Formats: sequence, structure tokens, C-alpha cells
Amino acid sequence: MPQMSVRGEVMPASPIRKLVPLANEAKRKGIKVYHLNIGQPDIPTPEIGLDAVRDIRREILEYSPSEGYKSLREKLVSYYATFNINISADDIIITTGGSEAVLFSFMACLDPGDEIIVPEPAYANYMAFAISAGAVIKTIPSSIEDGFALPSFDKFEALISERTRGILICNPNNPTGYIYSKEEMERLKDIVRKYDLFLFSDEVYREFCYTGAPYVSAFHLEGIEDNVVLIDSVSKRYSECGIRIGALITKNKALRNHVMKFCQARLSPPLLGQVVAEASIDASQEYLQSTYDEYLARRNFLINGINAIPGCYTPMPMGAFYTMAKLPVDDADKFCAWCLKEFQYEGQTVFMAPGSGFYTTPGLGINQVRLAYVLNREDLAKALVVLEKALEAYPGRTL
Amino acid sequence: MPQMSVRGEVMPASPIRKLVPLANEAKRKGIKVYHLNIGQPDIPTPEIGLDAVRDIRREILEYSPSEGYKSLREKLVSYYATFNINISADDIIITTGGSEAVLFSFMACLDPGDEIIVPEPAYANYMAFAISAGAVIKTIPSSIEDGFALPSFDKFEALISERTRGILICNPNNPTGYIYSKEEMERLKDIVRKYDLFLFSDEVYREFCYTGAPYVSAFHLEGIEDNVVLIDSVSKRYSECGIRIGALITKNKALRNHVMKFCQARLSPPLLGQVVAEASIDASQEYLQSTYDEYLARRNFLINGINAIPGCYTPMPMGAFYTMAKLPVDDADKFCAWCLKEFQYEGQTVFMAPGSGFYTTPGLGINQVRLAYVLNREDLAKALVVLEKALEAYPGRTL
Repeated sequence: MPQMSVRGEVMPASPIRKLVPLANEAKRKGIKVYHLNIGQPDIPTPEIGLDAVRDIRREILEYSPSEGYKSLREKLVSYYATFNINISADDIIITTGGSEAVLFSFMACLDPGDEIIVPEPAYANYMAFAISAGAVIKTIPSSIEDGFALPSFDKFEALISERTRGILICNPNNPTGYIYSKEEMERLKDIVRKYDLFLFSDEVYREFCYTGAPYVSAFHLEGIEDNVVLIDSVSKRYSECGIRIGALITKNKALRNHVMKFCQARLSPPLLGQVVAEASIDASQEYLQSTYDEYLARRNFLINGINAIPGCYTPMPMGAFYTMAKLPVDDADKFCAWCLKEFQYEGQTVFMAPGSGFYTTPGLGINQVRLAYVLNREDLAKALVVLEKALEAYPGRTL
Repeated sequence: MPQMSVRGEVMPASPIRKLVPLANEAKRKGIKVYHLNIGQPDIPTPEIGLDAVRDIRREILEYSPSEGYKSLREKLVSYYATFNINISADDIIITTGGSEAVLFSFMACLDPGDEIIVPEPAYANYMAFAISAGAVIKTIPSSIEDGFALPSFDKFEALISERTRGILICNPNNPTGYIYSKEEMERLKDIVRKYDLFLFSDEVYREFCYTGAPYVSAFHLEGIEDNVVLIDSVSKRYSECGIRIGALITKNKALRNHVMKFCQARLSPPLLGQVVAEASIDASQEYLQSTYDEYLARRNFLINGINAIPGCYTPMPMGAFYTMAKLPVDDADKFCAWCLKEFQYEGQTVFMAPGSGFYTTPGLGINQVRLAYVLNREDLAKALVVLEKALEAYPGRTL
């Protein structure tokens, strides 16, 4: 058998993925599994988006432009303007999901051995895209006790080397729900400017800011316009993860030309997804408000429920629809597997994402899980009961 | 401004792309431009595929499985069986177009510095994906005089080094239209087996084999099942390039596990495209036959027309819908640009892909162009007249 790549070998299989067969096995046994592990919303896609594809008049489903349809990019300009993000259609490149925007950012900015700094816990797939590009992610731990606030300037500075090319943030954050303050964003700006780094800013959850504090986009920072690469996606805000439409936005023309070479190689982003995305931007204020209200209610319900379980703690997430929770267990990897494999309460169990998958520093997150509040409140209530019962029964309980 | 990647710097911008602004400028001046440069068919997508998405009943456009829907993969199994390609649904991974199948093949099999051997002329984007993966493409020239037949065993052997990991073919071939014979495929098998290489086989044009000679898939070769990586796409056969649905097929379980890590990182292939692709497999025999007949007629018409122009020569392509043609010009890059920029005949001109973009060996293909016969015959006839007039007027004519 021919030799395969080392790259594929070192790429970590997500700890969630490792648990999928256990969840499937539990379901086969008739156990109801509450999915707290994934970011797949149960909120309906806007009707206006679905109707656009139901009404499609085309005879040929042909390649779209490599940078995406101009009509979609122009509509996005108006959308961003409502967040005081002032860009032009030419600054936007439509990608196949936010995932491709991350990959192409790395491909265009980083060479093998180049480094980027990422506060952890962090979205696990950043690591996969870095490995694809041969780049190295250096993580700075943020802590649950601080509510996952941005690490200090000197913590960043301590990691900067000859090979450092950028900083990557997710804001509002997956998995912590943290939203960086104006002061924290200014701190990032200072580092970016001092070392002339790229600031990769994944802002796909901007609709979901619950605290009333202002959302500060990387594009709100003055004087580093050529350094900012904004990563976006319509997946979460319109509950249409499957259409695979995202965007890579930069005012840096040279970088855009670089990125476009990768875009041209893959020919075009999905046509039908673009049709849905463009229409979805016209989703009613009512749709957006009721989605927001629903997530806010779920957040409050889940977080209060978790914190009411003995030995559990999670900070109140400010945005997105995840939270990192500390559980009274020896090892959350083991506990999550045990819930699926050996536990049930009245024919039900819970599927959680072990915290270890969001850290690269060994030992961190060992007693943490990421919980997504994308289930309706009734199911969340049941899941909370199941989790409490599971913690009572788990042999590795530390409380 | 921060430093960008060398990778993006060395990635060649396609010679076609460089001409796009000239074509747009010509159109702005009211000139009718015949697109012989692209593989975007003008054949309608099957109604059954379009209807599937028009009738979509889903409320949420959610993530599909990372490997694609099982129903689609199972249907593809039956499809491949009609070509005597015997695989199971588990051997198939649905990708975002054939493009992603190429990228993930390279990512999973090749590390930076690893080499693959590719007969040239070759599809230009293979080079872009190799650069993305940090891999090196070593080309073996095939010649227009031989009709672009497979180079001899010793030509391959001469290129094999410690770093050689695979051979990549496109069969039926883009850009030449060549179809490898049973004897040539056996020769590839022998090399693959002798050096334990991967055989990456891009077979997206299998519907378009015009000579009656048997189509030999890489999966028809016995004894190298673990070495074969088949790259496929529904784009060309159902004229639905925009839906971005392809497949990576391998019986090598270890490789599949490797590839799946890259698939999981990008979450899922496009949902709506999968819906269209699955339905399109049921396109009527009549649809497929009329598409085939149309391309066959266009092929005969275009090739005879080219060969009737003084100083021009192209072999009769056996398959796909492209041909490489030799023109009596000093430099096809210049000639193609000149056609768009400085020439018109009765308000019309032609857009052709310069041959140089399909070769890496310097100087090869300098007087060649790739022509796609995806236009209707009426337009092909006009394009041929324009081409003949352009060749008469071109200052760099060599005849």
C-alpha cells in the first residue's frame, strides 16, 4: 500500500467525531440522544431563502464567478453597513462556507512553518486548516475563571517569533460565547500594528450578541485595514449551514489577488447556495428577532440550569450559541463517551463535545465540555435532567 | 502590509484568467465573443435534477454528513456499475466538485516536497492544487503528433525519485480528448505496482467516449485496488457545473480515513447540489443520448473545420469536449490576446485558451490552443470563420 501523507496522520480526528459511532449505537438501542454537541440549529431557514431556490428559473446550473455573484456581494455590502462595517462588493469573495474562507486565508497568507496565534479554547477545525496549509497554531490559554477574556498583551508578545504571521480570533466566540470588548479589540490592534500581522477575524455569530455591549468588528479598528481578514458565513444567522456559503473579506488588494488564485482553482462557490443566501438577506426583522429571542431564552435557561447542578460551572456566554462548562468529572472525554455508551436515564442520554478538542495545551479543558444551545427549551430541560443524573451516576465523579 | 505566502505568489494565474478582462472589454465595445475557452456546457441541466430542488420540502437547510448523503452514494454505486466499476457506497466520499476531490487526494497522500507525475498537456488547476498541498508536479510531455498518447514506460521511470508518490491522469483527457487504451492503462498499472504509487484518475468525462473503443477506468485494473483514487464529478455529464458536487472514490480504507479528516474539517459538501445530483442520476436515456449525439456532432464539425484552415492541425479527440489545436502563429498567448484586443470580423471575435497554460515544460504548447466544443454548431461555424480570418490578419502568422 502506498505511503500516505504525514499531514493527514497528524491531523487530529475531532473528539466529537470519535463519539459519533457511540451515539449511533445508542440510537440503535432506542435511546433518545440529546445533541448538545453540534452547532446545527433547529431554527427553520427563512422561507424567503427556500422560496428562492424553489422558484429557480434557470435551465443550466452553470459555474458562477469564482468570487461569487456580484448581486450577492452587493447585497452583502448593505447587510454589513447595518453593522457599521463599511466595505465594497470588490472587498468580498464568496467562499464555500466559512470553512473555505479560513482555509484560503491560511493558504494565501501562510507558508509551511509560519505561525499564527490563537486564544484557546478555539474552534477545533482551525487546527485542521492550519495543518492543511502546513502552518503552526500557537495557542494562548484563556480561562473559564476569567470568563474566557482576551489574554494580556504580553502573553501574545511572548509567543511572537520570526515566523509569526497573524492572530486568529472568533468573535463572538465559538466555543466560549465570549465577545471581545472595545478595549480588548484595541489591544489586538496594537499587537497587529506593532508586528504587522494579519488579523483573521471569524465573526459568523455577530447576530447573536446578548449583552447590549457593542459588537466590535475587526473592521471597526482604524489603521489596520490592510491587515484584517474577515471570515464570515450565512450558515448560522439564517440557519442554512448546508448551503455552504461564506465569505472572505479584505480591503488588502494584494491579498485579494492572492486569494483569488485559490478561488479560481476551485472554479466557483455553490450556485444554489448563493441563490438562497442572497434571498435570505431579505429575511424579515421578525424572523431575525424571533431567532434572537429564542437563542437568548435558551441561553438563559441552559446556563442557569447548568450552574444549578452541583459542581458545575459555566460563565454566562455573551454571544453565539455555545458555552464551555466545567463539570465535576475526572476526564470529560471519558465522561462524554460513558454517557453515550453506558448510561441512560429513562431511555435518554446526552451527547456533549469534550473540552479537550478545543485546546492544544495538554491537560487544559480536561474537565470541560462545550454545550450548544441549539435545541428547543423542552429538550434542553430534559437534557439538563439527564446530565444531572449522569453526573450522579458517573464512576469518575470528582465531587 | 504583512507578508503574504510564497505559495500564493508562485501559483500561476491561469492564462485564460489573464484574458478575461480583454474579453470583457471587447464585449463592452459590442463585439460578439465566441467562448471556445471554457468547459461550461450550454446543454440544459436535466429537468429531473432541477425539479428535485424546485420541489424541496425541507424546512432547514442543514449540514449533510461530511461524506455526503448515503442515498446519493448508494445511487452512484448503481451508476458506476453500468460502467462495470464495482464499488460500494462506503468507498465513495462526496466532495465539493471534482476540484475538492483533487485537493483532498493531494492533501491526504502528499506531503510538501512529494512528487506526482502527470502527462502534459494537463488541466491547469492540478498545478494549483499541488501548490496548495506543497507537492511537486513532474510532467512528461505527450505530443500532438502522436495524438497525445501515453508516454512510454521508461519516460515515467526516468522521473521516478525517492519522493514520487503517485501518477495523475485525466481520462478521457482534458485538454486533449485522448482516451487511454487498455494497453496504456496496463502500462500505468505496471508502473504503479512496481513503485507502489497512487494512481489518481480523473474520469469526469466518461460519458463522452466517441470512438467505440472501450473506456478503461482505473478501477478496471486488477491488483492495484488500494492504489487507485478515482476523481469524479457530475458537473459535465449533467451540465450542472454550478452545483459543485464531485466524488473521491477509493477502496483503500486507510486512505479513506485520512481523507475523511479533511472532509470533516470542512463540515459538509453542498446540500442542495446533492439533491440535484441524486435526482440527475435518473436523467432519461434520451437526455444522455441526445447530449452525447450533440457533442459528437460538434466534435466532428469543429475538428474538420479546424483542419480545413491552412496551417492548422488537431487530432480527432476520442472523448471529452476539448481539443488541442496547433495554429500557424508565433505565440498562442499573444495570438489569443490579440484576437480579443485588436481583432474583430464583422463585429465578432474568438476567446481561446492558450496552450502554454496546460504545459509546465517551457516552450511547449507555444503554438497550441485548447478549444472547447461546448457551443452550438451555428456558433461553432461562425467561430471557425472568425478564427480563419484572424489567422489571416495576425501579424505573427508563421505560414
